[in-house]
Amino acid sequence: MIIGKVVGNVWATRKDEKLCGQKFLVVKRMESKSKEKDELLVAADNVGAGHGDYVLITTGSAARVSIENENVPVDAAIVGIIDSIDVSDD
Amino acid sequence: MIIGKVVGNVWATRKDEKLCGQKFLVVKRMESKSKEKDELLVAADNVGAGHGDYVLITTGSAARVSIENENVPVDAAIVGIIDSIDVSDD
Amino acid sequence: MIIGKVVGNVWATRKDEKLCGQKFLVVKRMESKSKEKDELLVAADNVGAGHGDYVLITTGSAARVSIENENVPVDAAIVGIIDSIDVSDD
Amino acid sequence: MIIGKVVGNVWATRKDEKLCGQKFLVVKRMESKSKEKDELLVAADNVGAGHGDYVLITTGSAARVSIENENVPVDAAIVGIIDSIDVSDD
Amino acid sequence: MIIGKVVGNVWATRKDEKLCGQKFLVVKRMESKSKEKDELLVAADNVGAGHGDYVLITTGSAARVSIENENVPVDAAIVGIIDSIDVSDD
Repeated sequence: MIIGKVVGNVWATRKDEKLCGQKFLVVKRMESKSKEKDELLVAADNVGAGHGDYVLITTGSAARVSIENENVPVDAAIVGIIDSIDVSDD
Repeated sequence: MIIGKVVGNVWATRKDEKLCGQKFLVVKRMESKSKEKDELLVAADNVGAGHGDYVLITTGSAARVSIENENVPVDAAIVGIIDSIDVSDD
Repeated sequence: MIIGKVVGNVWATRKDEKLCGQKFLVVKRMESKSKEKDELLVAADNVGAGHGDYVLITTGSAARVSIENENVPVDAAIVGIIDSIDVSDD
Repeated sequence: MIIGKVVGNVWATRKDEKLCGQKFLVVKRMESKSKEKDELLVAADNVGAGHGDYVLITTGSAARVSIENENVPVDAAIVGIIDSIDVSDD
Repeated sequence: MIIGKVVGNVWATRKDEKLCGQKFLVVKRMESKSKEKDELLVAADNVGAGHGDYVLITTGSAARVSIENENVPVDAAIVGIIDSIDVSDD
């Protein structure tokens, strides 16, 4: 899993109908505890994350496992809201 | 999912026949709301995206889920046309 | 899919026997229409690509879908020979 | 597999319930025997790794194979604690 | 597939028991015919590669296809020992 920070929202009216009803958030990957990478990701959110939250994101086919629906074409899903991270050598 | 911008078209007469009938677009991944990455991707398009559109792209096996055909060898598919993105810290 | 340029050949006498009979080409990924990335890939070729051709390459499990054999351990396959690319903002 | 170093812990009370009971560690990928990459990963740990350990990490769908549960949405798992690495040209 | 150079060995006594009996080698990915990338990978080896060999490596779920065992959590496998590479524009 990667560690991300929720930085925004995205709206798409015209979309694959299999995505309808699924909430998405824009996240940035963290390189370290305090530095974000210049890379926008969009992840499905089923845990109720909000703006500014640090989150755990699973990618690839595991995202569909989280969603519990193999027919939803997502490749990234928020699977946890981080309470705290304890990282040394950082 | 990643956020891309549709930047062009690609034509291939000689191709895997399982791709026939599938529309493809050339996209560039966005690093931020305003900056594209130097990286060309080609994604299947089933939502009717056009030149200059910002789009949501799903990658890996999820692309075949979007296409709804496990026998089409695509690894990237446009799953939404973005109306607006709201990103802070950007 | 990514866009690659065929830059060479590779020979391997000792190999996984499940790869026998499969043609492989060395490709470089294109960052833009005119600039190649410093990264060598080896892709299965079932469309008859030749040296200098620009090609569409599918990666991951989709490569086995192209090969139409789930028992061949390839992770990249050439799925089209590009006739022309039309890219703006390039 | 990649080689990582265990650098910390992460806590998430609100999470995908399918992850409950699974231990996670924060790791950094090693570029060489002595240099870590600026990239935080979170991996499931079933081998009992501890802080400062160098570990083997499998990624993608193989992580669920390690966990022996296809319904747990992990994309990285620690599969070994490294006793020693012998690398030349390093 | 990627092209790698075998640069070393790795030992792990405590490991996922599903990996027992499987030989692993440390490899570095080649960016070009003569330049290695600063990135250590560990790949399963079933073709008998040795130190200094240039090898073809398949990644992701294809690695388990090579191993012919879906229950072994590997994400990289050496599938060929390269006799020669012929790359132009290099």
